[in-house]
Amino acid sequence: MKILISKKTDIIYYYKGSGDYHCKEGFLKEEDINSGSKIIYTNTGREFLVFEANHYDYYNKIKRGPQILIPKDIGYIIARSGIDKNSFVIEAGGGSGGITSYFSRICRKVHTYEIKPEHCDIIKKNIEFLELENVELFNQDLSENIENEKDIDLLFLDMPDPKVVLEKDLSGIKSGNYIVCYLPSIVQIADLQQFVFTRDDLYWEEMTEIITRQWKITKHISRPFHNKETDHTAFLAFIRKV
Amino acid sequence: MKILISKKTDIIYYYKGSGDYHCKEGFLKEEDINSGSKIIYTNTGREFLVFEANHYDYYNKIKRGPQILIPKDIGYIIARSGIDKNSFVIEAGGGSGGITSYFSRICRKVHTYEIKPEHCDIIKKNIEFLELENVELFNQDLSENIENEKDIDLLFLDMPDPKVVLEKDLSGIKSGNYIVCYLPSIVQIADLQQFVFTRDDLYWEEMTEIITRQWKITKHISRPFHNKETDHTAFLAFIRKV
Amino acid sequence: MKILISKKTDIIYYYKGSGDYHCKEGFLKEEDINSGSKIIYTNTGREFLVFEANHYDYYNKIKRGPQILIPKDIGYIIARSGIDKNSFVIEAGGGSGGITSYFSRICRKVHTYEIKPEHCDIIKKNIEFLELENVELFNQDLSENIENEKDIDLLFLDMPDPKVVLEKDLSGIKSGNYIVCYLPSIVQIADLQQFVFTRDDLYWEEMTEIITRQWKITKHISRPFHNKETDHTAFLAFIRKV
Amino acid sequence: MKILISKKTDIIYYYKGSGDYHCKEGFLKEEDINSGSKIIYTNTGREFLVFEANHYDYYNKIKRGPQILIPKDIGYIIARSGIDKNSFVIEAGGGSGGITSYFSRICRKVHTYEIKPEHCDIIKKNIEFLELENVELFNQDLSENIENEKDIDLLFLDMPDPKVVLEKDLSGIKSGNYIVCYLPSIVQIADLQQFVFTRDDLYWEEMTEIITRQWKITKHISRPFHNKETDHTAFLAFIRKV
Repeated sequence: MKILISKKTDIIYYYKGSGDYHCKEGFLKEEDINSGSKIIYTNTGREFLVFEANHYDYYNKIKRGPQILIPKDIGYIIARSGIDKNSFVIEAGGGSGGITSYFSRICRKVHTYEIKPEHCDIIKKNIEFLELENVELFNQDLSENIENEKDIDLLFLDMPDPKVVLEKDLSGIKSGNYIVCYLPSIVQIADLQQFVFTRDDLYWEEMTEIITRQWKITKHISRPFHNKETDHTAFLAFIRKV
Repeated sequence: MKILISKKTDIIYYYKGSGDYHCKEGFLKEEDINSGSKIIYTNTGREFLVFEANHYDYYNKIKRGPQILIPKDIGYIIARSGIDKNSFVIEAGGGSGGITSYFSRICRKVHTYEIKPEHCDIIKKNIEFLELENVELFNQDLSENIENEKDIDLLFLDMPDPKVVLEKDLSGIKSGNYIVCYLPSIVQIADLQQFVFTRDDLYWEEMTEIITRQWKITKHISRPFHNKETDHTAFLAFIRKV
Repeated sequence: MKILISKKTDIIYYYKGSGDYHCKEGFLKEEDINSGSKIIYTNTGREFLVFEANHYDYYNKIKRGPQILIPKDIGYIIARSGIDKNSFVIEAGGGSGGITSYFSRICRKVHTYEIKPEHCDIIKKNIEFLELENVELFNQDLSENIENEKDIDLLFLDMPDPKVVLEKDLSGIKSGNYIVCYLPSIVQIADLQQFVFTRDDLYWEEMTEIITRQWKITKHISRPFHNKETDHTAFLAFIRKV
Repeated sequence: MKILISKKTDIIYYYKGSGDYHCKEGFLKEEDINSGSKIIYTNTGREFLVFEANHYDYYNKIKRGPQILIPKDIGYIIARSGIDKNSFVIEAGGGSGGITSYFSRICRKVHTYEIKPEHCDIIKKNIEFLELENVELFNQDLSENIENEKDIDLLFLDMPDPKVVLEKDLSGIKSGNYIVCYLPSIVQIADLQQFVFTRDDLYWEEMTEIITRQWKITKHISRPFHNKETDHTAFLAFIRKV
């Protein structure tokens, strides 16, 4: 996939497959797009930047069913939990498989549990689209399977009531490692905290929300602007397995 | 390393090495600490949780010289740039080698450039302490070496004036990939943007600041609280190599 | 003016004038609206709350030309500058006369300068609509008149370059009192600060931006939600007259 | 009261009373301080700005018992509730009488209820210090007196459980006007919302938290900085009397 950006309008176009690229600003020849030139021109003489798509571009193009997590939350989960090349991650409530792709690309192995078949279909398509090779997808309820999972480095739960999993046998999670819960509402967080508080094998370490402000910077302007994507998404609870 | 948490005071103790652990709340026997029990008791009967340290704990224990980046910024840089197991990252202005450890643990290879010998010493110690195996440290000026680096997936610059590097031959950065600049002041950002704007091989994609709010959640309280670490750190500029 | 709120849909209707009120949820009889009952019913049996409009409701109904200031900024300007019943306020760049109404209702006297005749027309209409009695509107350039104004308790400038006023004779501003500048971009703020810094009769006291987060609270939900109105508006500079 | 600011150190001194002013930067002569000069010099030749104190300075000097409200919250309460010169405000849980002074200076009449005698003493001292003339202070429980109060334009409640007042006869609050509750914790807000939801004479209009970011702006720096005062204070609930 290639990124084409019109220097006049700043519009970003995604070029997949082959052939000339037609848009309302004119058309770009396939041979120009693939020429290696950084700057090419439409038939009408309009200047375009051309460069390779990266993971973020592909991420923005995955099939959407349930809402996917966005980089602000994904990044904090990765950095705060400290997962790496050797980690084994389990996630449940996979939704569209958004964060799955991050776990897959960074970690050794990912198990994704999703009870709804139609969401599994979306996740499957995104696993193929993003060519993820170390993700195993289970159309099952994690709460009925958690006792069989071993050596877990991170358990990520994106579900309305994570207690259904946390009430089960958690001995497969390594001591000192994180269970991260992604919950939109403070009521859910408070409810979860009450539960964790009663458990000697769980330690409530931190609850944080991540806010991003994107800025418009030009020669004459420098001010925050609104980006719908960066509104409140969810609160993140970091619970440690004792 | 093990984490010891007093259930009475909520104080967190880091247990490294061997022997009994003495603190103002009494002492814990070495054999109890290593027994595998989740809960142990001091000689005075005080209850402690015991669990294994994780990367975040080690990160908090690295040797500090220049200020290190914190998870809110590190996470966004990782997620937004999309680096993974196959990535080659170059960073300059390594400071204490904080973000270095994240790059190292997630990516294939890291080159760290740092001109000050005393900072190099700190980075070297932290590389050893964190047992990082794929970091090469150069006590050199990146601006004089960037032309020799090839196949760069991410260039991270934590220096007051990143233009000194960006003015050089950047052909080693893969097309479509990111240069991320970490700058505390908007004046620096505006200055950088003016420069990028004049260049056909650089595309200013986004400037964002990350704000975290940590919450205190107990049975009766749920409110944000101040955490000195989460104040303004820096603005993050994401520039793409065309 | 009365406020009518449908208990079923939560939609808010503004009832001005007289006669029955027709909306897509049915109609409400004039005699019911004016009966003093807190709850009345449409012809279709739908339940409505009825109560009196207050200043905030009227504010939301003023005629809009240029964007008006919103309560988050207005409130901070009022509280931080400490204006009261005895204050004389001068504002320039009045726009639609939004903050004018607040100054008028709180302070003793307001002089509003606005160079564009079409904006003056809007301000004039809003002064009438809100029945403000202590506002004098000048279709003039404040920078040519500031030297004639005396005993100023607050000078509020909502204009791209407030230096055009600040370069003039400011002896009419009382010692220790504020000039507040409302500027959307940091570049403007930095430029203003440079200017103030060279002046012995001006003291740069504070620059602040106000962010509000509105929360949705129901039986089962408590989370921040996005309100387009509460995005970045402007930075507020508080400068004191020495 | 006068404000003295050292141009070298940027330290702010408050000059009350009479006589020469001695500080660690030298001393300033009384006659110089009162000369009307904007710039005066210490015996050691250090340059000082001199100007009159304003309400904000006095506010910072009031006697503190319980924590006082700060301008970010006070301002929003004023602007959002729309109080003015003609308003009659009742507040309970007055604490140190901080917001009292704002209500007093802006509105026609203020009734302050405070059950603790020691807090009443502090409020009384601050009423005198700030020379407030329209505040009546009651060392009584508002919940036992609210039924006797009439024509209320704003009811402000700074107490852990405002329901004790809201359960009483509220007919003295004018239709359409606000009850504003100041509550530090979301749990309190959720509890209050549940109560309001059951009442036909109360309408839950908005819940907002106000965040301020102060910026350091100099010739070479422009970045947010931490101001301990601007941390989370409380959530503000705006409830309308039907």
